[in-house]
Amino acid sequence: MKRIAIDMDDVMADFSAKYARLFNEKFDLDLTKEQLAREDVRHLHKEFMDEIMIRLEDPTFFRDLEVMADSQEVIKDLSEHYEIFIATAAMEVPASFNAKFEWLKEHFPFLEQMNIVFCGDKSVIHADYLIDDNTKNFKGFKGEGILFSAPHNMDETHQPRVSTWQEIRQYLLADQVKA
Amino acid sequence: MKRIAIDMDDVMADFSAKYARLFNEKFDLDLTKEQLAREDVRHLHKEFMDEIMIRLEDPTFFRDLEVMADSQEVIKDLSEHYEIFIATAAMEVPASFNAKFEWLKEHFPFLEQMNIVFCGDKSVIHADYLIDDNTKNFKGFKGEGILFSAPHNMDETHQPRVSTWQEIRQYLLADQVKA
Repeated sequence: MKRIAIDMDDVMADFSAKYARLFNEKFDLDLTKEQLAREDVRHLHKEFMDEIMIRLEDPTFFRDLEVMADSQEVIKDLSEHYEIFIATAAMEVPASFNAKFEWLKEHFPFLEQMNIVFCGDKSVIHADYLIDDNTKNFKGFKGEGILFSAPHNMDETHQPRVSTWQEIRQYLLADQVKA
Repeated sequence: MKRIAIDMDDVMADFSAKYARLFNEKFDLDLTKEQLAREDVRHLHKEFMDEIMIRLEDPTFFRDLEVMADSQEVIKDLSEHYEIFIATAAMEVPASFNAKFEWLKEHFPFLEQMNIVFCGDKSVIHADYLIDDNTKNFKGFKGEGILFSAPHNMDETHQPRVSTWQEIRQYLLADQVKA
């Protein structure tokens, strides 16, 4: 059975949506998470940096993120054909450990607890696929990196790229049937 | 540069010593951690199981474990020749996340934070070596498992086996010089 490692933020959990809400609150704007990548607001992200870093230190920050559309259903289906591991760079924000764990337990209760990985450098992950929104995490990874589209990675040329969980289903379950 | 993954409990942190202290307190005994494996006290471990499971849920349990002899010095030396990752099965005891992280920061401040991995099933670890006291963690691991002797694994036949951090130095730094 092949193994898929799945990132959390902006793949399973809508980090960018919460970021957008806080960003909009601060600057009295009403941008979508996609519009956050606009050239004309890039300087505001720098201004927002210190504040968001402080907010990330709040142990509850990651607890109320919304679940990405269709991720529960598709991961459940994938788990019938693949070993599923969750690989999140929690070491970047150690305050997030408990919130991330509880979030997974609430929204993905079918996952194996022993298959959750809190790491930093993802080159340590041994898997056939890694679904992630950051191409930096594919460096040193020996399997196939599948880029999950997010506002901050639209300029990246990495392939394969998927934009929705339904596209992941198509890519990985079609592949499974062929195998 | 080759990569070494290192387990925490009973390899870097003296879990068995704290277990022995609590066990002795409960049964009014004065056994060493090695004597805990004695045939005549095995029934007491079963009796102690419920209590220790409750104690492990205390978020501070892992915070005051003693550092295994010579581990700091040898891991520091190894880090000059190898990439060092810490791979602990923290998912077995989620209450331990923060204590384990703080313990590493205190006693091994030279380690890269991004190279700490809290996992469960260690077959997800991609490394050349895994130093661990549980042979179950070598199953599915693609590198070489190095068994660190502990009271509970003395009946195991796995090789290579090391009993001290000085033996690890000899095994892995001699190997490095040859490479």
